[in-house]
Amino acid sequence: MKKRSFCVAGGDLRSIYLIRSLVEKGFKVFALGLDEAKLPDEAVHIKTVTELQKCEITVLPLPCSDGEGFLKTAFSKEKTPLSEIIENLPKGSVLMGGLIPKDIAENAKEREIKTFDYYHREEFAVRNAAITAEAAAALSMEMLSESVSGVPVLILGHGRIGRLLSSILKALDAKVTVAARRFSELAWIRSEGMTPLEFRLLDGEISKFRVVFNTVPTMVLNREKLVLVNKDAIVIDLASEPCGTDFEAAKELGITAKKALGLPGKFAPKTAGEIVCDTVLNIIDETENEHE
Amino acid sequence: MKKRSFCVAGGDLRSIYLIRSLVEKGFKVFALGLDEAKLPDEAVHIKTVTELQKCEITVLPLPCSDGEGFLKTAFSKEKTPLSEIIENLPKGSVLMGGLIPKDIAENAKEREIKTFDYYHREEFAVRNAAITAEAAAALSMEMLSESVSGVPVLILGHGRIGRLLSSILKALDAKVTVAARRFSELAWIRSEGMTPLEFRLLDGEISKFRVVFNTVPTMVLNREKLVLVNKDAIVIDLASEPCGTDFEAAKELGITAKKALGLPGKFAPKTAGEIVCDTVLNIIDETENEHE
Amino acid sequence: MKKRSFCVAGGDLRSIYLIRSLVEKGFKVFALGLDEAKLPDEAVHIKTVTELQKCEITVLPLPCSDGEGFLKTAFSKEKTPLSEIIENLPKGSVLMGGLIPKDIAENAKEREIKTFDYYHREEFAVRNAAITAEAAAALSMEMLSESVSGVPVLILGHGRIGRLLSSILKALDAKVTVAARRFSELAWIRSEGMTPLEFRLLDGEISKFRVVFNTVPTMVLNREKLVLVNKDAIVIDLASEPCGTDFEAAKELGITAKKALGLPGKFAPKTAGEIVCDTVLNIIDETENEHE
Amino acid sequence: MKKRSFCVAGGDLRSIYLIRSLVEKGFKVFALGLDEAKLPDEAVHIKTVTELQKCEITVLPLPCSDGEGFLKTAFSKEKTPLSEIIENLPKGSVLMGGLIPKDIAENAKEREIKTFDYYHREEFAVRNAAITAEAAAALSMEMLSESVSGVPVLILGHGRIGRLLSSILKALDAKVTVAARRFSELAWIRSEGMTPLEFRLLDGEISKFRVVFNTVPTMVLNREKLVLVNKDAIVIDLASEPCGTDFEAAKELGITAKKALGLPGKFAPKTAGEIVCDTVLNIIDETENEHE
Repeated sequence: MKKRSFCVAGGDLRSIYLIRSLVEKGFKVFALGLDEAKLPDEAVHIKTVTELQKCEITVLPLPCSDGEGFLKTAFSKEKTPLSEIIENLPKGSVLMGGLIPKDIAENAKEREIKTFDYYHREEFAVRNAAITAEAAAALSMEMLSESVSGVPVLILGHGRIGRLLSSILKALDAKVTVAARRFSELAWIRSEGMTPLEFRLLDGEISKFRVVFNTVPTMVLNREKLVLVNKDAIVIDLASEPCGTDFEAAKELGITAKKALGLPGKFAPKTAGEIVCDTVLNIIDETENEHE
Repeated sequence: MKKRSFCVAGGDLRSIYLIRSLVEKGFKVFALGLDEAKLPDEAVHIKTVTELQKCEITVLPLPCSDGEGFLKTAFSKEKTPLSEIIENLPKGSVLMGGLIPKDIAENAKEREIKTFDYYHREEFAVRNAAITAEAAAALSMEMLSESVSGVPVLILGHGRIGRLLSSILKALDAKVTVAARRFSELAWIRSEGMTPLEFRLLDGEISKFRVVFNTVPTMVLNREKLVLVNKDAIVIDLASEPCGTDFEAAKELGITAKKALGLPGKFAPKTAGEIVCDTVLNIIDETENEHE
Repeated sequence: MKKRSFCVAGGDLRSIYLIRSLVEKGFKVFALGLDEAKLPDEAVHIKTVTELQKCEITVLPLPCSDGEGFLKTAFSKEKTPLSEIIENLPKGSVLMGGLIPKDIAENAKEREIKTFDYYHREEFAVRNAAITAEAAAALSMEMLSESVSGVPVLILGHGRIGRLLSSILKALDAKVTVAARRFSELAWIRSEGMTPLEFRLLDGEISKFRVVFNTVPTMVLNREKLVLVNKDAIVIDLASEPCGTDFEAAKELGITAKKALGLPGKFAPKTAGEIVCDTVLNIIDETENEHE
Repeated sequence: MKKRSFCVAGGDLRSIYLIRSLVEKGFKVFALGLDEAKLPDEAVHIKTVTELQKCEITVLPLPCSDGEGFLKTAFSKEKTPLSEIIENLPKGSVLMGGLIPKDIAENAKEREIKTFDYYHREEFAVRNAAITAEAAAALSMEMLSESVSGVPVLILGHGRIGRLLSSILKALDAKVTVAARRFSELAWIRSEGMTPLEFRLLDGEISKFRVVFNTVPTMVLNREKLVLVNKDAIVIDLASEPCGTDFEAAKELGITAKKALGLPGKFAPKTAGEIVCDTVLNIIDETENEHE
């Protein structure tokens, strides 16, 4: 891969680690909207968007936007409109970001800027799920008043997070049951050495567990289900918004329930930043090989 | 589920265990083309195909055919044409089998017999892959002149078998590398704690391994690759025909290479029979629920 | 086992869970020095030491003493001298406790009270080590800014905690090295699938690790060693007092070092209480069988 | 360590691998009583015992003796009396062997030859136990007609082999129960995530298992116990002679029982040879350091 120049713009600790990784790999790195962050000496702060002209690849954070059209950043008081960033990117350059707003992506395309949303890359999703799973296991260990070893735990859903989480909890000697709908998923659960549970039989079993993790992004743990959960149990919801737990009902029923979102950035920003780095380089690698 | 009557026809030890499982679950079971097999007392031998009229569900083995249109069986000297079986099935009854020949399936359909090939069910494939993976691990343990713990092993491919096999070998403390093409699979391999290897970098790495498992059903281990393999190494090919190893080249090069096919039936006929039982019952379960 | 009457005196959350366990097993339980604790309905609060006359077995906490001769308790403002407790125990009754002060034990013996220190029981030590190991793993996961999976970690010592901790971290896919002195321990480490490191070679290797756990209760991580530790690394000392880390030197060198003591009671009081319960019952079981 | 000269005498495949390991580490190696074996080019065959004068360290196999006072060897038709070997060793040289007969050891001592029996070294025992455990797991996989994953297995004894075997079987997703007598061992079993079983409760539980491994070298599985074992179960006895199973009773009762002795040399001669090499070098290392 040619040693191109990058601009990393905004974000949180993940951006710092992304910059570190890029610098270690020998890339030239500029930083925008990170004026309060401690960066490696090799990185160069950009003060105005016009300096973006120097950058072949610009990487925005996950999420890109603060919700009001400005670059999301934890390390600057400056407010930089995303549209201004796009306007200053050199034609033919590459833009990457996580959850790029639709209008920004279209704007970039019109200006002949190749745009990629790394949030939708499968390898990014898998490796972030691995951090989430590890963080969720650590979280349950903290929340429990007992050793997780030997404890019956239930995981709702066997997607990326469900699969990786079940594997970690099993490794910690918890007694792991995973609930899924499809026969093929139930076969996987069993083949991986866990106890499979058909979703339709959930009501009769849910009271037996000390921890219930939800990974399904629809309302699974509604009041009806929560009534059946053991009063001493802990509920940890890992599904993306709007989650799958009726937290109000949980509170009323006296069940400890926790919504755990954005774990990769909070729990392991270094690894999360490295994952952005790897994904960005994968995308470039693919683009270059296409051209061959 | 209603307690229906089954006929299990032909096959090998798996059929015996399938019959045992069905009997244990309380089903009425008839057996065709298994006259030399020791069956549980509750099972009833059928002597002529005309008796199939009594059966609501007929289960043929995997594979159904001996390659010449007759029922494949290890427990009878009688040759029963598959077409005769179809002709004697009651209208509206159900036929299940593994790798049902096309003409037989069409014939059955014409006669209004609901036909299902369990070989193509995902849950069947997953659980058979689990047996195959276990058998392959055991095979490598036998073939190696050293302890598998600590030994560098390579698995080509990260499909069902590759995934389950890598997990078993890692559990046995082998140093596991898995080669795959897609970034998403490489991310999975890494997230599961194994070393990922990009397929395109295979040539530079393949000499480092003591065991190479192939799971990819195309010619991956051709002469060009085998030349690079360590002379002390063992090659085990688990891919379905036409396999992925040039066995002739391996022989010439003095590399021990083994084609390992049909492991579930040979290595764990009891589990393999139970998997047929579970899959057959899943199919019926789905059919019944559809009708509701 | 006969259903005897117990008095659980003082302690922290572990005592509450000990009481719960005893009640669940059908024993009559009195509680002394726990007036502010929420106990199961079946347990009876004792208000004065004279009521101890009713109890066949008295269980003191770990540690028994607050350091000044009084019963250690987190759930009472009353100060009860341990000597008063002894004086009120019925002759021939049984006294159990953790780290019973020497004078108290002698006093009890003189009064013909069978005295057992459960802290010195091997099964108690092993199971507490298991909680400590789990807690230490969780602690490192919290402290690290990256995923523990894939991270090189070092454990100094291969005693109970070292052994159990290495197993957990390996299960979490960390790259685990364990340092020990004896060839036999190094053989165990290797046979369990970890990388063994001879203690005498520590200086040349210690810089490679992201987390260093110490379990050896002598000054191993002195300034000389800490100078060699990576600046980004985390040190967690699990050895009992006086620990094995020069924390002052660590601070000066800018290394994050944490003394982690008393983890079972803090991290998993429920399990820790159950372990006291099991150990107490084991002791009684042994005593009774001796008499047969 | 100084590069000394070795003579490897007699033995089986393990000796070949021992020689290979010594040669790879740069030692000069002579071979006695291995005239029919294929050795690395660097090794030199010794034709008569008088040539032993050249060797600083002589390594005999495990066991040394064929039972009649001759060197045990699988690779020579010559019969070499052990006493002749001793008589030809240079004064002050070192003799190592496995299970050295008492008279031979005394003879050597009288001649001022430093003698070490590596069979009694703890690190040798541990690493051989690791091979035995792996071999036993592989053996059970072969013998079972079903997948070991999910199968209830029982291990009698929690010594070196019991411990390592339980860990492997658990890794293979078997449902592992380990029977032991002492509370401390039961605590270890539980802390390692297995189900502990008190030996005294064995009678009520033994019928539940599909595989029973014995590692205890006294008659545990006598007729009384075997009567309780499931008829479909497999018994594998790993204890050293006189074993712990009444094989005659097993045969009469129709239970498949197998005495599995000497597994390291048969199952993994390469690793077993390397273990002899490592142990021999450890002994020399210790001896040299003592002299410092």
